[in-house]
Amino acid sequence: MHPFVLVNVAMSADGKISTHERRQVRISGTGDRARVDRLKAESDAIMVGIGTVLADNSSLNIKSEELRRQRRDAGKEENPIRIVVDSRGRTPRDADILHKGKGERIIAVSKMADPERVHALRNLADVMIVGETEVDLALLFELLGKRDIRRVMVEGGGQLIGALFRENLVDELYTYVGNLVIGGEKSPTLSDGTGFLREEEFTRLSLVEIAPMDGGVLIHWKVEKKDNQAC
Amino acid sequence: MHPFVLVNVAMSADGKISTHERRQVRISGTGDRARVDRLKAESDAIMVGIGTVLADNSSLNIKSEELRRQRRDAGKEENPIRIVVDSRGRTPRDADILHKGKGERIIAVSKMADPERVHALRNLADVMIVGETEVDLALLFELLGKRDIRRVMVEGGGQLIGALFRENLVDELYTYVGNLVIGGEKSPTLSDGTGFLREEEFTRLSLVEIAPMDGGVLIHWKVEKKDNQAC
Repeated sequence: MHPFVLVNVAMSADGKISTHERRQVRISGTGDRARVDRLKAESDAIMVGIGTVLADNSSLNIKSEELRRQRRDAGKEENPIRIVVDSRGRTPRDADILHKGKGERIIAVSKMADPERVHALRNLADVMIVGETEVDLALLFELLGKRDIRRVMVEGGGQLIGALFRENLVDELYTYVGNLVIGGEKSPTLSDGTGFLREEEFTRLSLVEIAPMDGGVLIHWKVEKKDNQAC
Repeated sequence: MHPFVLVNVAMSADGKISTHERRQVRISGTGDRARVDRLKAESDAIMVGIGTVLADNSSLNIKSEELRRQRRDAGKEENPIRIVVDSRGRTPRDADILHKGKGERIIAVSKMADPERVHALRNLADVMIVGETEVDLALLFELLGKRDIRRVMVEGGGQLIGALFRENLVDELYTYVGNLVIGGEKSPTLSDGTGFLREEEFTRLSLVEIAPMDGGVLIHWKVEKKDNQAC
Protein backbone atom coordinates (compact mmCIF):
# COMPACT_ATOMS: atom_id res chain seq x y z
CA MET A 1 0.00 0.00 0.00
CA HIS A 2 1.52 3.31 -1.14
CA PRO A 3 1.51 6.24 1.25
CA PHE A 4 -0.62 9.28 0.38
CA VAL A 5 1.68 11.69 -1.52
CA LEU A 6 1.22 15.41 -1.44
CA VAL A 7 3.42 17.85 -3.30
CA ASN A 8 3.84 21.37 -1.94
CA VAL A 9 5.68 24.00 -3.94
CA ALA A 10 5.97 27.78 -4.00
CA MET A 11 6.36 29.22 -7.47
CA SER A 12 6.42 32.65 -9.06
CA ALA A 13 3.45 33.97 -11.06
CA ASP A 14 5.22 32.66 -14.17
CA GLY A 15 5.71 29.19 -12.71
CA LYS A 16 9.37 29.25 -11.61
CA ILE A 17 10.62 27.74 -8.34
CA SER A 18 14.03 29.45 -8.44
CA THR A 19 16.30 31.41 -10.77
CA HIS A 20 18.09 29.68 -13.63
CA GLU A 21 21.18 29.63 -11.39
CA ARG A 22 18.99 27.61 -8.97
CA ARG A 23 19.38 30.27 -6.34
CA GLN A 24 16.65 29.97 -3.72
CA VAL A 25 14.14 32.81 -3.91
CA ARG A 26 11.80 33.98 -1.15
CA ILE A 27 8.47 33.50 -2.96
CA SER A 28 6.00 33.30 -0.09
CA GLY A 29 5.58 35.10 3.24
CA THR A 30 5.04 34.28 6.90
CA GLY A 31 1.45 33.06 6.44
CA ASP A 32 2.40 30.52 3.82
CA ARG A 33 5.51 29.38 5.67
CA ALA A 34 3.36 28.67 8.74
CA ARG A 35 0.96 26.66 6.54
CA VAL A 36 3.88 24.63 5.13
CA ASP A 37 5.19 24.00 8.64
CA ARG A 38 1.76 22.62 9.62
CA LEU A 39 1.65 20.40 6.53
CA LYS A 40 5.08 19.06 7.49
CA ALA A 41 4.00 18.39 11.06
CA GLU A 42 1.03 16.37 9.77
CA SER A 43 3.26 14.19 7.55
CA ASP A 44 5.10 11.01 8.39
CA ALA A 45 7.92 11.87 5.99
CA ILE A 46 9.25 14.79 3.96
CA MET A 47 10.86 13.95 0.62
CA VAL A 48 13.21 15.96 -1.61
CA GLY A 49 15.43 15.25 -4.57
CA ILE A 50 19.20 15.48 -4.42
CA GLY A 51 19.18 18.60 -6.65
CA THR A 52 17.28 20.49 -3.97
CA VAL A 53 19.65 19.28 -1.24
CA LEU A 54 22.65 20.45 -3.27
CA ALA A 55 21.07 23.79 -4.23
CA ASP A 56 19.41 24.83 -0.97
CA ASN A 57 20.96 22.71 1.81
CA SER A 58 17.67 22.96 3.70
CA SER A 59 17.26 20.93 6.87
CA LEU A 60 13.49 20.52 6.22
CA ASN A 61 12.86 20.33 9.93
CA ILE A 62 9.76 21.78 11.56
CA LYS A 63 10.30 25.42 12.50
CA SER A 64 7.56 25.84 15.09
CA GLU A 65 8.49 24.76 18.62
CA GLU A 66 4.78 24.33 19.36
CA LEU A 67 4.28 21.91 16.44
CA ARG A 68 7.35 19.92 17.46
CA ARG A 69 5.98 19.72 21.02
CA GLN A 70 2.61 18.50 19.73
CA ARG A 71 4.38 15.74 17.80
CA ARG A 72 6.37 14.71 20.90
CA ASP A 73 3.17 14.71 22.97
CA ALA A 74 1.62 12.38 20.40
CA GLY A 75 4.54 9.98 20.85
CA LYS A 76 6.16 10.88 17.54
CA GLU A 77 9.64 12.06 16.64
CA GLU A 78 9.95 15.85 16.64
CA ASN A 79 10.45 15.89 12.88
CA PRO A 80 8.99 13.66 10.18
CA ILE A 81 11.38 11.20 8.55
CA ARG A 82 13.44 13.09 6.00
CA ILE A 83 13.94 11.25 2.72
CA VAL A 84 16.40 12.19 -0.02
CA VAL A 85 15.92 10.67 -3.48
CA ASP A 86 19.52 10.45 -4.59
CA SER A 87 20.16 7.89 -7.34
CA ARG A 88 23.95 8.23 -7.23
CA GLY A 89 24.48 8.79 -3.52
CA ARG A 90 25.68 12.36 -3.88
CA THR A 91 24.24 13.72 -0.61
CA PRO A 92 27.11 15.59 1.07
CA ARG A 93 28.05 14.07 4.40
CA ASP A 94 27.74 17.48 6.04
CA ALA A 95 24.32 18.33 4.52
CA ASP A 96 22.02 20.05 7.01
CA ILE A 97 19.26 17.55 6.28
CA LEU A 98 21.45 14.85 7.86
CA HIS A 99 22.35 16.81 10.97
CA LYS A 100 19.88 19.54 11.92
CA GLY A 101 16.94 18.56 14.11
CA LYS A 102 16.02 15.21 15.61
CA GLY A 103 14.43 12.45 13.57
CA GLU A 104 15.15 9.62 11.17
CA ARG A 105 16.72 10.03 7.74
CA ILE A 106 16.44 7.84 4.67
CA ILE A 107 18.58 8.20 1.57
CA ALA A 108 17.16 6.29 -1.38
CA VAL A 109 19.85 5.40 -3.92
CA SER A 110 20.10 3.16 -6.98
CA LYS A 111 22.58 0.37 -7.66
CA MET A 112 24.59 2.95 -9.62
CA ALA A 113 25.57 4.75 -6.42
CA ASP A 114 29.24 4.50 -5.54
CA PRO A 115 29.63 1.83 -2.80
CA GLU A 116 32.08 3.97 -0.82
CA ARG A 117 29.65 6.86 -0.73
CA VAL A 118 26.86 4.52 0.28
CA HIS A 119 29.03 3.10 3.05
CA ALA A 120 29.85 6.57 4.37
CA LEU A 121 26.20 7.65 4.26
CA ARG A 122 25.09 4.59 6.22
CA ASN A 123 26.58 6.15 9.34
CA LEU A 124 24.28 9.12 8.95
CA ALA A 125 21.07 7.71 7.51
CA ASP A 126 19.19 4.60 6.58
CA VAL A 127 20.33 3.98 3.00
CA MET A 128 17.83 2.10 0.81
CA ILE A 129 19.05 0.73 -2.52
CA VAL A 130 15.98 0.79 -4.73
CA GLY A 131 16.35 0.58 -8.49
CA GLU A 132 18.98 -0.22 -11.09
CA THR A 133 20.23 3.06 -12.58
CA GLU A 134 17.91 5.44 -10.80
CA VAL A 135 15.63 5.27 -7.82
CA ASP A 136 12.50 3.24 -8.62
CA LEU A 137 9.95 5.60 -7.11
CA ALA A 138 6.96 3.24 -7.20
CA LEU A 139 8.97 0.55 -5.43
CA LEU A 140 10.34 3.08 -2.95
CA PHE A 141 6.79 4.13 -1.98
CA GLU A 142 5.79 0.51 -1.66
CA LEU A 143 8.66 -0.08 0.75
CA LEU A 144 7.86 3.12 2.66
CA GLY A 145 4.28 1.93 2.98
CA LYS A 146 5.51 -1.30 4.55
CA ARG A 147 7.33 0.79 7.15
CA ASP A 148 3.98 2.28 8.12
CA ILE A 149 4.71 5.63 6.46
CA ARG A 150 1.23 6.76 5.44
CA ARG A 151 1.66 10.35 4.39
CA VAL A 152 4.62 11.77 2.46
CA MET A 153 5.06 15.44 1.69
CA VAL A 154 7.28 16.24 -1.31
CA GLU A 155 8.98 19.63 -1.27
CA GLY A 156 10.92 19.52 -4.56
CA GLY A 157 12.65 19.83 -6.81
CA GLY A 158 11.18 19.92 -10.29
CA GLN A 159 13.01 16.80 -11.47
CA LEU A 160 11.66 14.62 -8.65
CA ILE A 161 8.14 16.04 -8.91
CA GLY A 162 8.12 15.65 -12.70
CA ALA A 163 9.08 11.98 -12.26
CA LEU A 164 6.36 11.49 -9.64
CA PHE A 165 3.70 12.92 -11.97
CA ARG A 166 5.01 10.80 -14.83
CA GLU A 167 4.68 7.69 -12.68
CA ASN A 168 1.22 8.67 -11.47
CA LEU A 169 2.32 8.76 -7.84
CA VAL A 170 0.96 12.13 -6.67
CA ASP A 171 -2.34 12.44 -4.79
CA GLU A 172 -2.50 16.13 -3.97
CA LEU A 173 -0.78 19.30 -5.11
CA TYR A 174 -0.49 22.62 -3.30
CA THR A 175 0.99 25.49 -5.27
CA TYR A 176 1.60 28.81 -3.68
CA VAL A 177 1.74 31.35 -6.52
CA GLY A 178 3.80 34.35 -5.42
CA ASN A 179 3.50 37.96 -6.51
CA LEU A 180 6.63 38.15 -8.62
CA VAL A 181 7.99 37.20 -12.04
CA ILE A 182 11.30 35.32 -12.06
CA GLY A 183 11.37 34.43 -15.75
CA GLY A 184 13.88 32.37 -17.68
CA GLU A 185 13.46 29.41 -19.99
CA LYS A 186 16.09 27.52 -17.99
CA SER A 187 14.70 28.34 -14.55
CA PRO A 188 13.42 25.27 -12.68
CA THR A 189 9.66 24.75 -12.57
CA LEU A 190 7.57 22.53 -10.37
CA SER A 191 7.42 19.72 -12.90
CA ASP A 192 10.58 19.36 -14.98
CA GLY A 193 12.17 16.36 -16.68
CA THR A 194 10.87 15.34 -20.08
CA GLY A 195 7.24 16.31 -19.51
CA PHE A 196 4.17 15.07 -21.32
CA LEU A 197 3.45 15.40 -25.03
CA ARG A 198 0.02 13.93 -25.72
CA GLU A 199 -3.37 15.00 -24.33
CA GLU A 200 -3.97 11.58 -22.81
CA GLU A 201 -0.68 11.74 -20.88
CA PHE A 202 -1.32 15.03 -19.07
CA THR A 203 -1.96 14.71 -15.34
CA ARG A 204 -5.49 15.99 -14.72
CA LEU A 205 -6.34 17.90 -11.55
CA SER A 206 -9.46 18.98 -9.78
CA LEU A 207 -9.60 22.21 -7.88
CA VAL A 208 -10.15 21.86 -4.12
CA GLU A 209 -9.63 25.43 -2.95
CA ILE A 210 -8.13 28.80 -3.77
CA ALA A 211 -7.21 31.45 -1.24
CA PRO A 212 -5.32 34.72 -1.31
CA MET A 213 -2.27 34.59 0.98
CA ASP A 214 0.77 36.82 1.60
CA GLY A 215 -0.01 38.85 -1.52
CA GLY A 216 -0.18 35.73 -3.70
CA VAL A 217 -2.54 32.81 -4.16
CA LEU A 218 -2.65 29.35 -2.64
CA ILE A 219 -4.11 26.75 -5.01
CA HIS A 220 -4.98 23.32 -3.71
CA TRP A 221 -5.49 20.56 -6.31
CA LYS A 222 -6.46 16.93 -6.08
CA VAL A 223 -4.85 14.67 -8.68
CA GLU A 224 -7.20 12.63 -10.86
CA LYS A 225 -5.49 9.24 -10.92
CA LYS A 226 -4.88 7.81 -14.36
CA ASP A 227 -6.27 4.34 -14.94
CA ASN A 228 -3.34 3.38 -17.12
CA GLN A 229 0.07 4.84 -16.77
CA ALA A 230 1.78 6.25 -19.81
CA CYS A 231 3.82 3.52 -21.45
CA MET B 1 3.19 57.99 -24.40
CA HIS B 2 3.24 54.19 -24.25
CA PRO B 3 0.01 52.28 -24.59
CA PHE B 4 -1.30 50.34 -21.60
CA VAL B 5 0.05 46.79 -21.98
CA LEU B 6 -1.76 43.77 -20.64
CA VAL B 7 -0.50 40.23 -20.94
CA ASN B 8 -2.99 37.38 -21.01
CA VAL B 9 -1.80 33.78 -20.89
CA ALA B 10 -3.26 30.38 -20.11
CA MET B 11 -0.84 28.03 -18.39
CA SER B 12 -0.95 24.62 -16.77
CA ALA B 13 -0.86 24.21 -12.98
CA ASP B 14 2.91 23.77 -13.32
CA GLY B 15 3.35 26.94 -15.36
CA LYS B 16 3.65 25.62 -18.93
CA ILE B 17 1.98 27.26 -21.93
CA SER B 18 2.49 24.30 -24.30
CA THR B 19 4.38 21.02 -24.56
CA HIS B 20 8.13 20.98 -25.18
CA GLU B 21 7.33 20.31 -28.83
CA ARG B 22 5.42 23.64 -28.69
CA ARG B 23 2.21 21.89 -29.58
CA GLN B 24 -0.79 23.99 -28.61
CA VAL B 25 -2.70 22.56 -25.66
CA ARG B 26 -6.29 23.30 -24.69
CA ILE B 27 -5.72 24.64 -21.19
CA SER B 28 -8.89 26.65 -20.54
CA GLY B 29 -12.58 26.15 -21.30
CA THR B 30 -15.48 28.07 -22.81
CA GLY B 31 -15.80 30.53 -19.91
CA ASP B 32 -12.21 31.62 -20.12
CA ARG B 33 -12.19 31.78 -23.91
CA ALA B 34 -15.20 34.13 -23.76
CA ARG B 35 -13.32 36.29 -21.24
CA VAL B 36 -10.29 36.42 -23.55
CA ASP B 37 -12.52 37.37 -26.48
CA ARG B 38 -13.91 40.29 -24.45
CA LEU B 39 -10.42 41.42 -23.47
CA LYS B 40 -9.48 41.37 -27.15
CA ALA B 41 -12.54 43.36 -28.13
CA GLU B 42 -11.61 46.03 -25.56
CA SER B 43 -8.07 46.36 -26.95
CA ASP B 44 -6.78 48.54 -29.74
CA ALA B 45 -4.19 45.95 -30.72
CA ILE B 46 -3.27 42.32 -30.09
CA MET B 47 0.42 41.48 -30.08
CA VAL B 48 2.23 38.14 -30.45
CA GLY B 49 5.78 37.02 -31.08
CA ILE B 50 6.85 35.25 -34.24
CA GLY B 51 7.38 31.97 -32.34
CA THR B 52 3.68 31.86 -31.53
CA VAL B 53 2.72 32.62 -35.13
CA LEU B 54 4.94 29.79 -36.36
CA ALA B 55 3.79 27.31 -33.69
CA ASP B 56 0.04 27.99 -33.59
CA ASN B 57 -0.85 29.91 -36.78
CA SER B 58 -3.67 31.61 -34.85
CA SER B 59 -5.60 34.40 -36.58
CA LEU B 60 -6.16 36.17 -33.21
CA ASN B 61 -9.41 37.60 -34.51
CA ILE B 62 -12.45 38.11 -32.30
CA LYS B 63 -14.59 34.99 -32.22
CA SER B 64 -17.89 36.49 -31.05
CA GLU B 65 -20.07 37.97 -33.81
CA GLU B 66 -21.76 40.12 -31.16
CA LEU B 67 -18.46 41.64 -30.00
CA ARG B 68 -17.42 42.31 -33.59
CA ARG B 69 -20.77 44.03 -34.19
CA GLN B 70 -20.33 46.18 -31.09
CA ARG B 71 -16.95 47.29 -32.37
CA ARG B 72 -18.42 48.16 -35.79
CA ASP B 73 -21.24 50.08 -34.10
CA ALA B 74 -18.62 52.06 -32.19
CA GLY B 75 -16.99 53.01 -35.48
CA LYS B 76 -14.05 50.65 -35.03
CA GLU B 77 -12.59 47.91 -37.19
CA GLU B 78 -14.10 44.50 -36.44
CA ASN B 79 -10.81 43.26 -35.07
CA PRO B 80 -8.08 45.08 -33.15
CA ILE B 81 -4.85 45.74 -35.02
CA ARG B 82 -2.83 42.56 -35.03
CA ILE B 83 0.88 43.05 -34.38
CA VAL B 84 3.61 40.47 -34.87
CA VAL B 85 7.00 41.06 -33.24
CA ASP B 86 9.25 39.40 -35.77
CA SER B 87 12.86 40.63 -35.67
CA ARG B 88 13.92 38.74 -38.80
CA GLY B 89 10.76 39.02 -40.86
CA ARG B 90 9.94 35.31 -40.76
CA THR B 91 6.14 35.65 -40.76
CA PRO B 92 4.90 33.23 -43.45
CA ARG B 93 3.07 35.04 -46.23
CA ASP B 94 0.14 32.65 -45.86
CA ALA B 95 -0.10 32.98 -42.04
CA ASP B 96 -3.73 33.15 -40.84
CA ILE B 97 -2.97 36.29 -38.85
CA LEU B 98 -2.40 38.12 -42.15
CA HIS B 99 -5.54 36.87 -43.90
CA LYS B 100 -8.34 35.81 -41.54
CA GLY B 101 -10.76 38.51 -40.41
CA LYS B 102 -10.90 42.20 -41.21
CA GLY B 103 -8.54 44.70 -39.63
CA GLU B 104 -5.08 46.20 -39.83
CA ARG B 105 -1.85 44.26 -39.43
CA ILE B 106 1.55 45.45 -38.29
CA ILE B 107 4.73 43.40 -38.52
CA ALA B 108 7.54 44.87 -36.44
CA VAL B 109 10.96 43.82 -37.71
CA SER B 110 14.57 44.84 -37.06
CA LYS B 111 17.16 46.00 -39.54
CA MET B 112 18.39 42.38 -39.60
CA ALA B 113 15.27 41.26 -41.45
CA ASP B 114 15.90 40.14 -45.01
CA PRO B 115 14.89 43.02 -47.37
CA GLU B 116 13.16 40.65 -49.80
CA ARG B 117 11.00 39.22 -47.06
CA VAL B 118 10.21 42.70 -45.82
CA HIS B 119 9.25 43.74 -49.33
CA ALA B 120 6.93 40.75 -49.72
CA LEU B 121 5.31 41.32 -46.33
CA ARG B 122 4.61 44.98 -47.15
CA ASN B 123 1.82 43.83 -49.47
CA LEU B 124 0.09 42.14 -46.56
CA ALA B 125 0.81 44.34 -43.55
CA ASP B 126 2.27 47.59 -42.38
CA VAL B 127 5.93 46.69 -41.79
CA MET B 128 7.71 48.79 -39.16
CA ILE B 129 11.49 48.57 -38.97
CA VAL B 130 12.27 49.22 -35.31
CA GLY B 131 15.64 48.26 -33.87
CA GLU B 132 19.05 47.13 -35.04
CA THR B 133 19.34 43.37 -34.52
CA GLU B 134 16.04 42.76 -32.79
CA VAL B 135 12.83 44.69 -32.35
CA ASP B 136 13.29 47.57 -29.90
CA LEU B 137 10.16 47.02 -27.85
CA ALA B 138 10.21 50.31 -25.93
CA LEU B 139 10.56 52.24 -29.17
CA LEU B 140 7.87 50.14 -30.83
CA PHE B 141 5.40 51.00 -28.04
CA GLU B 142 6.35 54.64 -28.31
CA LEU B 143 5.56 54.57 -32.04
CA LEU B 144 2.32 52.67 -31.44
CA GLY B 145 1.33 55.32 -28.89
CA LYS B 146 1.83 57.98 -31.55
CA ARG B 147 -0.62 56.10 -33.74
CA ASP B 148 -3.20 56.49 -31.00
CA ILE B 149 -3.00 52.85 -29.92
CA ARG B 150 -3.82 53.11 -26.23
CA ARG B 151 -4.33 49.51 -25.12
CA VAL B 152 -2.29 46.52 -26.31
CA MET B 153 -3.08 42.96 -25.33
CA VAL B 154 -0.16 40.51 -25.55
CA GLU B 155 -1.04 36.87 -26.09
CA GLY B 156 2.42 35.26 -26.17
CA GLY B 157 4.73 33.63 -26.44
CA GLY B 158 7.12 33.26 -23.56
CA GLN B 159 10.06 34.86 -25.36
CA LEU B 160 8.17 38.08 -26.15
CA ILE B 161 6.59 38.29 -22.70
CA GLY B 162 9.93 37.62 -20.99
CA ALA B 163 11.45 40.49 -22.97
CA LEU B 164 8.53 42.78 -22.07
CA PHE B 165 8.97 42.06 -18.34
CA ARG B 166 12.72 42.58 -18.65
CA GLU B 167 12.12 45.98 -20.23
CA ASN B 168 9.53 46.93 -17.64
CA LEU B 169 6.82 47.36 -20.28
CA VAL B 170 3.94 45.34 -18.81
CA ASP B 171 1.11 46.98 -16.85
CA GLU B 172 -1.22 44.07 -16.13
CA LEU B 173 -1.02 40.27 -16.18
CA TYR B 174 -3.86 37.78 -16.41
CA THR B 175 -2.93 34.15 -15.95
CA TYR B 176 -5.46 31.43 -16.34
CA VAL B 177 -4.12 28.42 -14.42
CA GLY B 178 -5.61 25.24 -15.87
CA ASN B 179 -6.36 21.95 -14.12
CA LEU B 180 -3.59 19.90 -15.69
CA VAL B 181 0.15 19.23 -15.45
CA ILE B 182 2.09 19.43 -18.72
CA GLY B 183 5.61 19.18 -17.25
CA GLY B 184 8.93 19.38 -19.00
CA GLU B 185 12.00 21.50 -18.31
CA LYS B 186 12.02 22.56 -21.98
CA SER B 187 8.31 23.35 -22.23
CA PRO B 188 7.62 27.05 -22.88
CA THR B 189 6.47 29.13 -19.92
CA LEU B 190 4.84 32.53 -19.81
CA SER B 191 8.12 34.34 -19.21
CA ASP B 192 11.08 32.76 -20.97
CA GLY B 193 14.34 34.22 -22.29
CA THR B 194 17.19 34.75 -19.85
CA GLY B 195 15.05 35.60 -16.82
CA PHE B 196 16.05 37.51 -13.72
CA LEU B 197 18.77 36.55 -11.27
CA ARG B 198 18.80 39.10 -8.47
CA GLU B 199 16.03 39.96 -5.99
CA GLU B 200 16.00 43.59 -7.12
CA GLU B 201 15.44 42.58 -10.75
CA PHE B 202 12.30 40.49 -10.20
CA THR B 203 9.12 42.03 -11.53
CA ARG B 204 6.83 42.59 -8.53
CA LEU B 205 3.08 42.14 -8.83
CA SER B 206 0.06 43.02 -6.77
CA LEU B 207 -2.96 40.79 -6.70
CA VAL B 208 -6.14 42.33 -8.14
CA GLU B 209 -8.48 39.34 -8.17
CA ILE B 210 -8.70 35.57 -8.14
CA ALA B 211 -11.64 33.56 -9.41
CA PRO B 212 -12.34 29.89 -10.10
CA MET B 213 -13.15 29.32 -13.78
CA ASP B 214 -13.60 26.27 -16.02
CA GLY B 215 -12.09 24.00 -13.34
CA GLY B 216 -9.01 26.20 -13.00
CA VAL B 217 -8.18 29.61 -11.57
CA LEU B 218 -8.02 33.06 -13.12
CA ILE B 219 -5.42 35.29 -11.46
CA HIS B 220 -5.35 38.98 -12.26
CA TRP B 221 -2.17 40.87 -11.33
CA LYS B 222 -1.14 44.49 -11.59
CA VAL B 223 2.55 45.07 -12.29
CA GLU B 224 4.43 47.25 -9.83
CA LYS B 225 6.51 49.44 -12.12
CA LYS B 226 10.21 49.50 -11.38
CA ASP B 227 11.71 52.93 -10.87
CA ASN B 228 14.92 51.94 -12.56
CA GLN B 229 15.17 49.37 -15.24
CA ALA B 230 17.69 46.58 -14.88
CA CYS B 231 20.90 47.59 -16.61
